[in-house]
Amino acid sequence: MAVEFAQKNVKVIGFEKSEEKTNLVNSAKNYIKDISNDTFEKVVKSNFLSATTDFSKMGECDAFIICVPTPLDKFRKPDMSYIEASCKAIGQNMKAGTFISLESTTYPTTTEDLMLPIIEKESGLKQGKDFWLAYSPERVDPGNETYHTKNTPKVLGAMTKDGAEIGKALYCKAIDEIHEVSSPRVAEMVKILENTYRLINISLINEMALLSGKMDINIWEVIEAAKTKPFGFQAFYPGPGIGGHCIPLDPFYLEYIAKRFDFDLTMIHTAGHINMRMPHYMYIKIATALNSVQKAVNGSRILFLGVAYKPNIDDARESPALEIIDTVAHKGGIVSYHDPYIVKVKTNKERYFESVELTAEVLKTADCVVLTTNHKGFDANFIQKNSKLIIDLRNMVAEKSDTVFKL
Amino acid sequence: MAVEFAQKNVKVIGFEKSEEKTNLVNSAKNYIKDISNDTFEKVVKSNFLSATTDFSKMGECDAFIICVPTPLDKFRKPDMSYIEASCKAIGQNMKAGTFISLESTTYPTTTEDLMLPIIEKESGLKQGKDFWLAYSPERVDPGNETYHTKNTPKVLGAMTKDGAEIGKALYCKAIDEIHEVSSPRVAEMVKILENTYRLINISLINEMALLSGKMDINIWEVIEAAKTKPFGFQAFYPGPGIGGHCIPLDPFYLEYIAKRFDFDLTMIHTAGHINMRMPHYMYIKIATALNSVQKAVNGSRILFLGVAYKPNIDDARESPALEIIDTVAHKGGIVSYHDPYIVKVKTNKERYFESVELTAEVLKTADCVVLTTNHKGFDANFIQKNSKLIIDLRNMVAEKSDTVFKL
Repeated sequence: MAVEFAQKNVKVIGFEKSEEKTNLVNSAKNYIKDISNDTFEKVVKSNFLSATTDFSKMGECDAFIICVPTPLDKFRKPDMSYIEASCKAIGQNMKAGTFISLESTTYPTTTEDLMLPIIEKESGLKQGKDFWLAYSPERVDPGNETYHTKNTPKVLGAMTKDGAEIGKALYCKAIDEIHEVSSPRVAEMVKILENTYRLINISLINEMALLSGKMDINIWEVIEAAKTKPFGFQAFYPGPGIGGHCIPLDPFYLEYIAKRFDFDLTMIHTAGHINMRMPHYMYIKIATALNSVQKAVNGSRILFLGVAYKPNIDDARESPALEIIDTVAHKGGIVSYHDPYIVKVKTNKERYFESVELTAEVLKTADCVVLTTNHKGFDANFIQKNSKLIIDLRNMVAEKSDTVFKL
Repeated sequence: MAVEFAQKNVKVIGFEKSEEKTNLVNSAKNYIKDISNDTFEKVVKSNFLSATTDFSKMGECDAFIICVPTPLDKFRKPDMSYIEASCKAIGQNMKAGTFISLESTTYPTTTEDLMLPIIEKESGLKQGKDFWLAYSPERVDPGNETYHTKNTPKVLGAMTKDGAEIGKALYCKAIDEIHEVSSPRVAEMVKILENTYRLINISLINEMALLSGKMDINIWEVIEAAKTKPFGFQAFYPGPGIGGHCIPLDPFYLEYIAKRFDFDLTMIHTAGHINMRMPHYMYIKIATALNSVQKAVNGSRILFLGVAYKPNIDDARESPALEIIDTVAHKGGIVSYHDPYIVKVKTNKERYFESVELTAEVLKTADCVVLTTNHKGFDANFIQKNSKLIIDLRNMVAEKSDTVFKL
């Protein structure tokens, strides 16, 4: 978003706590895969994009776009501390007449009930008179070759009508289409609905995949056939679980706030339950496959292909592969992995691995090969030819057999 | 399907238990709204379509297509008696060399484990040698103006490869595109997946609508905004529950068979739970609206607009409107309804109603008007202008207000 604005000659300052990151930005060193190095260099060298750790410079800004993390803590409760800290910093440093937009995914009512009081208190200014507050969710699909930041319509919900006008005037400099809704809480719910839709459908197909396994039905064949229905169906695919920084988190913000309204979101709860258990089922699949050749996980060499949470990206956040790796390693498996996009990873349980080269030799020495991410570069024939035992969680190799186990 | 075949000069005999229906067919009296009277008359008069109650004529047939009902009984257990009776009749009357296809929705394994033994036993013939058995689910969307029987791809799963060839040779006479899958159980699962997808998503949006009501968020506005996402989202709309002869039933066949495989389908279970309760929530909404003007359901005149389970069709099977009507009537409400497509209905609890005319007077005398089906013909302005109190379950009239309650 910053680069989009800077490309349109809007002066953008990135406020950041990490000096390492501000140095990278200010020396025009691009660290984001979705942005081209040329573009990045251009906007930094032309002075339209810079970064700073000096929050007092916030007083120079006419508009703030907040995109701090909103993680879930260890008990899956939303951690609002980054939003609160941002609001404090902005409130203490802002001038009058500014526009403030939150883009982080969060539960409905955050902008109105959490942010507004902090900003008004810290600044002594009034929303709708001295500043304008809005919510406009980030909408990106990493790796999508058709839809980028600029040509993906952006939803905007401001607290007051004039705030919406200001927000549209700002965002339309960088984004082709702004879809205005009546309030921040509607915009907050939009983002949650989009990602909850995905969570629910991934959970359904995962559950159906598990049942299909028991019924000797190939779920991948079922999905291909269902896709021939020209209306009322959208295909989702099973896998070892959900990953990334949206789908495993967003729906649970809503579950959290729902309780404050004495409401139990049973669909999200059930979907979460299924997906939380998927990596464990995948471990069982690996153990079952090894058992078929009279081997135990304990002491076997297990090679994982792909640790990114989805194909063709370099992001392993919340990736189910890491959880499976932790379980396998914990049970005594000798783990290695290959991912062309990710050279090293730290698992949730703080195990460290470096990607190995994908050679015939590496495949041959593995007691089993687990296909966890279907990166474009993977050559299914080469993998199948050189592997003793395959556990294919992504429908990458052909039919199942005595040596090919599938989800 | 019969008419499609007959139009292509394939001789079709409808076997039917009801003499009333065979008489209608044989006298060219069309009773199915989706078929034009002209087409129907033409295929009957040209002798390509006829009907009979004489099952001994089954011996004349080269192929059987079974499309009997597969209802759920009062305990939501699949009632397979119609399929069993059909298989018996066919087995006792068929000649060798025939093709048999089931089109009724049912749980995976029905064709192979339930039908096959009956047909082989009754006929003394062998599948794959003397006859060929397949499953090919019906795929229709009543009221869809683009996709009809002919141009909707048809999934076909036969028990043996030669059966699939015969099945394709048959169906391609009437259907543009046949999608072959490897077995009847895969084809059975395809149909269940398609409709379970819908059940799950309707349930999710219904649950989110109930929460949104509590959070003062307009769910319809949320859905419109989410629809601007150009990838990864398909819109579903909340309503008073699920209706028709597919979505309220199909997923529960799967839940039933899953138990035989020691598997608990939690997503379907949860979705079923939400939808089962929706009509009750809608009754509460009506009671709440009446309460706001100091009236009770007991003794109030309550007018329902639409009893069909979806817009612009004449089908009230499993319609949630009927369940709401039953509850309202049971609690002492004075019920009337208007539906341009359905002149009279019987509710689940055997109450009988006839559609009233939709006049200003009728609207004015109602203590409240409940919008249950959004038929195209309904004039929202006219309804709103003449109604004292509206409960809008389909987002048909504008903003909510003191006199307009919305889902």
